[in-house]
Formats: sequence, C-alpha cells, structure tokens
Amino acid sequence: MKTTKSILALNAFEPGAAGIEDARLAGLVARRRSHAGAASVLFYEEPIEMVRASGVFMFDAKGNRYLDVYNNVPSVGHCHPHVVAAIARQAETLAIHTRYLNETVEAYADRLLASFPGELSNLVMTCTGSESNDLAVRLACSASGGTGFVVTETAYHGNTALTTEISPSSFKTGHIPPHVRTVPMPAGRPGDGPGDLARRFAADVGAALGDLAEKGIRPAGLIVDTIFSSDGVFADPPGFLEPAVAAVRAAGGLYIADEVQPGFGRTGAGLWGFSRHEVTPDIVTMGKPMGNGYPMGGVVTRPELIERYSKNFGYFNTFGGNTVAAAAGAAVLDVIESEGLIANAARVGAELRAGLVSLAARHAAIGAVRGAGLFVGLDIVDPESRAPDPAAASALINGLKRRRVLVGAAGPFGHTLKIRPPLCFSADDAALFVECVDAVLGA
Amino acid sequence: MKTTKSILALNAFEPGAAGIEDARLAGLVARRRSHAGAASVLFYEEPIEMVRASGVFMFDAKGNRYLDVYNNVPSVGHCHPHVVAAIARQAETLAIHTRYLNETVEAYADRLLASFPGELSNLVMTCTGSESNDLAVRLACSASGGTGFVVTETAYHGNTALTTEISPSSFKTGHIPPHVRTVPMPAGRPGDGPGDLARRFAADVGAALGDLAEKGIRPAGLIVDTIFSSDGVFADPPGFLEPAVAAVRAAGGLYIADEVQPGFGRTGAGLWGFSRHEVTPDIVTMGKPMGNGYPMGGVVTRPELIERYSKNFGYFNTFGGNTVAAAAGAAVLDVIESEGLIANAARVGAELRAGLVSLAARHAAIGAVRGAGLFVGLDIVDPESRAPDPAAASALINGLKRRRVLVGAAGPFGHTLKIRPPLCFSADDAALFVECVDAVLGA
Repeated sequence: MKTTKSILALNAFEPGAAGIEDARLAGLVARRRSHAGAASVLFYEEPIEMVRASGVFMFDAKGNRYLDVYNNVPSVGHCHPHVVAAIARQAETLAIHTRYLNETVEAYADRLLASFPGELSNLVMTCTGSESNDLAVRLACSASGGTGFVVTETAYHGNTALTTEISPSSFKTGHIPPHVRTVPMPAGRPGDGPGDLARRFAADVGAALGDLAEKGIRPAGLIVDTIFSSDGVFADPPGFLEPAVAAVRAAGGLYIADEVQPGFGRTGAGLWGFSRHEVTPDIVTMGKPMGNGYPMGGVVTRPELIERYSKNFGYFNTFGGNTVAAAAGAAVLDVIESEGLIANAARVGAELRAGLVSLAARHAAIGAVRGAGLFVGLDIVDPESRAPDPAAASALINGLKRRRVLVGAAGPFGHTLKIRPPLCFSADDAALFVECVDAVLGA
Repeated sequence: MKTTKSILALNAFEPGAAGIEDARLAGLVARRRSHAGAASVLFYEEPIEMVRASGVFMFDAKGNRYLDVYNNVPSVGHCHPHVVAAIARQAETLAIHTRYLNETVEAYADRLLASFPGELSNLVMTCTGSESNDLAVRLACSASGGTGFVVTETAYHGNTALTTEISPSSFKTGHIPPHVRTVPMPAGRPGDGPGDLARRFAADVGAALGDLAEKGIRPAGLIVDTIFSSDGVFADPPGFLEPAVAAVRAAGGLYIADEVQPGFGRTGAGLWGFSRHEVTPDIVTMGKPMGNGYPMGGVVTRPELIERYSKNFGYFNTFGGNTVAAAAGAAVLDVIESEGLIANAARVGAELRAGLVSLAARHAAIGAVRGAGLFVGLDIVDPESRAPDPAAASALINGLKRRRVLVGAAGPFGHTLKIRPPLCFSADDAALFVECVDAVLGA
C-alpha cells in the first residue's frame, strides 16, 4: 500500500495523460516543461494558470474564482494590503543585510522572540524553512556531539542536501542514510485509552534510538513537524509528544520543533504548534507563512547552541533578516493580532471539522477527520474495506477543483486531504467547502 | 600569515573593543547581541545604523550619506524604482509558488535562459545562492557518480551544510572534509609568460584530482566563483580557467560556475563571469544580485542532469520562482538593459582600476589592482616588505568609512579591498572613491 511516489508528486499533473484542450494552457505547460524539465511539479490533472489572488480567493486566467483551502504560505490572506504596503514601503526605503544595524530588523527580532519561552532567546534569520532546518540539524549535532536523527516515515523537512536526508518523503528510490531512523506517524488506534498514543510514539522513538545506539551512532535529535503535516496531520491528543521528547533527551539528543507548517497561528492555540504539547523545544524552525509569501525563515534556540556551532564555523545569510523581510514579518504579526486570526483559526477550524465529520454519515468514503485550528486532515477510504483510497482522494481533489475549490493531498498513501486555508477563512467559507465536498462525493 | 579568522569575520565589529559613545547605537548593538548572539556579524570598528538608500548612496540614522562601494546585492542601484514598482505591483496581485502556472514566471524563465549557451536549457529557481550551490553539488554528484570536489583555498560557496563543506573560508577550526581538495588562488607571479597562470592553475587542479584518485575518491567536480571574490578577486587573463576545466572533465567531473557574485553584468563583459573564460559550464548558479535584494537564486544546467537527480529525489522549492521573484528578476534585467549597466561596469570599472593604479606611485601601501568591470580587488601591502598587510587594509576600510565611503575586505590574508559598487556607479563616483583612498592613505 505504501506509495512509491514522493509526497511532492501527490496531486501532480502527469504530462503523459490526455492532452490539454485549451491552447494557451497547453502552451504554458509546454514552456514550463521545456525550461524546468524534470524538476517541474504542477498541480492537478489539468494545471491552472493563476493571475491574481485576494484574501481566501485565487483567480485563473479565464476569470474563474477559486476558494483557496490549500495554500498555507499566504497565511493571513492572499496579497494582504497591510503586508503588501509594508513590503513596498521598506523596499523603496532600504533593502539591505544585517551587517548594518536597522531598527526595523532589531524590533522584529525582539517582537518575534517575545512569543517564545524565555530560554529560547536567540534568533538566526534565514530565507526558507529548508535553510532553517539545515542549520537546526547542525546546531543539534554540534550541541549533542551526535549525528543520529529520528523522524517520521513520511516526514518532509526541506530541500537542501542535509534536510533531504531527514525527509523520507523526498526519496523516490533507495534508502534513507544509516544515521536516520524513522518511526510511524502518531496515529490513534481503535480502543486507545488516555496516554496510549503518547506511550506508543515514545516507544517507537525509544526503539529507533536503541537501534542507533546498537549501530554505534550517537543520537543528535528528534525533529518533527509539530502537526505532522506530510504524515497526514496528527494533532491530538495535545501533549502526546512529551514522552518521546523525554526519551530523546535521555539519550543525549535534542528536540527540534519544525514550525514551518504549523507555526504563526495556524493551530488556533497560540503562535506555535509545539505549545500544544507542553514541552519546550531545544530548537524551533520557521518558514512558509512567516512573511505571507515574502521568502523568509528563522531558527530560534538557546544562545549556547549558536555559540557552540559558531566556535567552528562562520554563518552568515545574505538575505536572512534583511530589512524588507523584517518589515514583512512584522506586518504579518500585526495582522494576526489585529484580525484575531488565532482565535479565528480555532473557531472556524472547529466548525470545519464538525462539518466534515457530519458528512461521514452520508458518505462512507470519509474516514477520519483530524487536526487543530485551520490545519485539517481528511482521510478518504474505501467504503467497504475502510482502507486508504488514494485514487478516490485524487478524484475528490480534482472534482473540487472543477467546483473551484483548491485542496491537496498528504500522508504515506496520499489518501488524506490536506486542508489548510488562509487563516482569514470564514465560517461561510468553511460551510461552502463542506458543501462542495458533499456534492463531489455525492456525484 | 594565513589568518585564523573566517572570511565572514573580515571587517567585523569586535564587541570587546572600546565602548560605543553614541547611546542609540550602543543600545542597538546590545539588542542585536542579545537576540542574535554568537552568529551576529556587524561591519566596522563602530557599526552603522542605516535607515535608507538610493542609487549608489546609503544614509545613516544621523543623515550622513555614504558612497556605497561594497554592496553587490542592490546591484542595479539601491531601491531602484523600477524594481520596487515591479515587486509592489506583483505582491499586490499574486504571490504564489510554481505549482500553478503564471505567465510572469514562465516569461522570466524564458528570458533568463536565453542569456545562456543553448545546451544550458533548464532552470531551477531557488531563493538563495546557498540553495543554488547546494543543489548544484548534488546534480554534479549524481551526474558524475563521484563525490570529490576541488575548490580554492579561500572559497565561499554558501551557508548550508553541504556548501559549507566546500567553503574553506567558513571553517574557523578543524579541517575541511576528506572529499574536498583545495587549490591556491589563481594569482599571477612576477615573470609569468602567456599561459603560465592557466597552466599553473590547471596543474594545481590536476594534482588535487590525482590526490582524490589516490584516496579512492571519485571526482564530482570543480566549483569556482568565476571572479574568485573571496580569494581576493582574480579575473585575468580571460580564458585561464579553460585548462583546469579540461582537467576536471578528463577525470569525469563537472564544472560548476558559481555566478552568485560575478553574475548579472558585474564583470562588464556580458551577464556572466564564465563567458570571459570561453568555456561553457555544466552547471551555473546564481543568487545575490538576481532580484536586487529580493531573495532569489537559480541553477541553470542541461536537462539530463536534472532528470538524473530527479529519478532519485523530489525537489520542490516553495518560494523559488514565486511570482514576485519573477517580477523582481525581470525588472532587474530591464534595468541592466535600459541603463546600459554592463557597458557602464566595463567603462567605469576600467577608470576605477586606472585611478587606483595611478595612486600606487604616491602610496607604497598599494599593491596589486585586479578585477573586471565593477569587481575590483586592491591589495594593501607593507611598504617595505610588500607582504600582505591586513591591519593597514582594516585601517584603510575604517578610514574610508569615516569619510563616508563603504568598502570591505577579502582574500586569505584579509589585505585585499573588495570593491564592488552598484553597477550604476559613475565616473565621478569612481573618482571620488580614488580621491578618498588617496586622502586616507596620505593621512
């Protein structure tokens, strides 16, 4: 049942399939394939030419309006005027790196760090989540003296060489390196009592650590996306990470919380996904929604970890923490606060999950509904066997697209709908989404 | 004589030195050190708080205007209105990744690729030069089946784990990994005849390849910044790279041209530094000036290299090739063309070098003047022994700063002034710079 596809290929356009009728679209696809070659990934059975976007909506070249229930980078809403104005204002004033001082940059760093537990008082600004995780892994290695990592089976932590090593979902062939161990996704099972999932996940992590030790590989850490996005979205019960983190720390390793996907309010419970688990990470990494589309990322940790690494290596990031990034990042925090987006994510996310759960009575294809805030996983299963049904998930995704609703897939089988709209998603938007899922499944 | 400092620490503020009198500046420095910790790098004996910039000028918080003879990211001029307008327009219209199609993105890819030799027909868009080189190294490894790399002794190719391995200048302690071999910078010597430097550099590369072979390490490639910036700027004679590239290819390796610093017109001879050497690279990487400050980078290569890598691994870059990056990149190409910046770099660069050479008659501290276009290296030496004098270079850099002129240091000894102003630098700007160097050295 394990798909041989990279998770990056889920919901991907397959050029070998039927031709594209629309000449303009066919021409764009041909140009894309000509210049991007084998690295090109386009969404949907028939790709979409997007021309503009606003709030929770995107518009294609024919003027069709799509409800965006997928894109987590424009997290406070596509082209949010407050963020756009901040970018434009700073770009026309000063766009420069951190080797000069600038109040906008220092103020953003102060403000961002204030949202973390006190001991996490240092921030390294980068350009992407990949750069953040790449540095975090090195910080963990130098602090622990180890090299071994434990990750989930369908983890994705970035596109650099180092982060690809800890991203089993990026491997199309071959094996992950010997210093990396995988554990199953933290999925609930029928009959689970309180604490069972947490104990099981910790036992899996413990076994992975034991196997590393047996091979003479000293552990450096456990890195998890705190909402397990690419595994299929696993959020509950809050706190289930704690025993696994205790196990890795007991073995001398560190806990890296990858907040690239859950961070900046999406889980509806504070800015950070890790806070739902009531254990402070050693290192936190950020990316995607940090600048609402402006390329920026960051690593937050304790000062001694950066000091330790910096004894051996210089680290400088030309674009990381540039003045425009800082202005964009501050504007994103402004909007999250002024529009109450964390509370909105909690409220609308709960309504969305309730709506999807209510559909299960009518549609046997609906399996589990999971998530926190506006990060929701919806399993599509075979109505009889209840086994994962990636083909049906794909049909639903493309059916939703024809109804002008955008969503994607996740999980080891590709049968989980990855539902993560902009955080300004309203109750009406959620109701419309549920209605469309209902209609496509009923068709 | 080899400095133990990382090249990243050249011209760096040393907090242990004399206190900062200005209270506002002292406060900013304290905040920076508190949140950025050991990773913080600030320029100058006393850092500068910058507040705005325009064209070739930057302005500090007290209203002082500085002539920028250093910053190569805002390459078409600080806050160029055409680039700023393109960023603002696209950011308010659509800021999204490449899994949807968009004409702005496809048109930029077509236009950029048209500037390369025909066989280099694929482009992977990234966010930074580091991400570009990180991918390029993997492409070279998968295409060659090797892992060994040859780099220069003071090379810098990025801040990811993989690119740090091939960046000897980032190592403060310890040794570069066993699969990496270094060769001396391609410096001319007194008495060199035509072809001597090229033969010597190729012989060094050949010896490094031989040493790799002896240890059973199959070569993957030679990666060089085509103007050898961090080595101290080595541009001449044009074509000197050709025999070294032939040697690496004969050994089964590839040639990666790192255009992060010389690219986009700076050398005054076309868009790319490699073209001065009349040998087509297997892979070209781009970064810094690509978006005039907007974080973007790219890898250009032959389709089969991407195809080969993509058989084993998925690669997707969330921010790479986003619509705003494409708009920024296209605007940069517009300005390079409409303002004739390549010809300007050639003309003003030649005047600048001539002016500096003419100073040598009056100032024995001036050693060699090297470069191409607006990328110039100026060696500062002991007047008697002619040995590298990093302390005098540092004094000159800080003296120039007091005269409101910004410049930095490079090279294994830190005695080379790294001169790389925005490409709109005028003959008057060049004359002013020469005049200030004259004044500081005469003081």
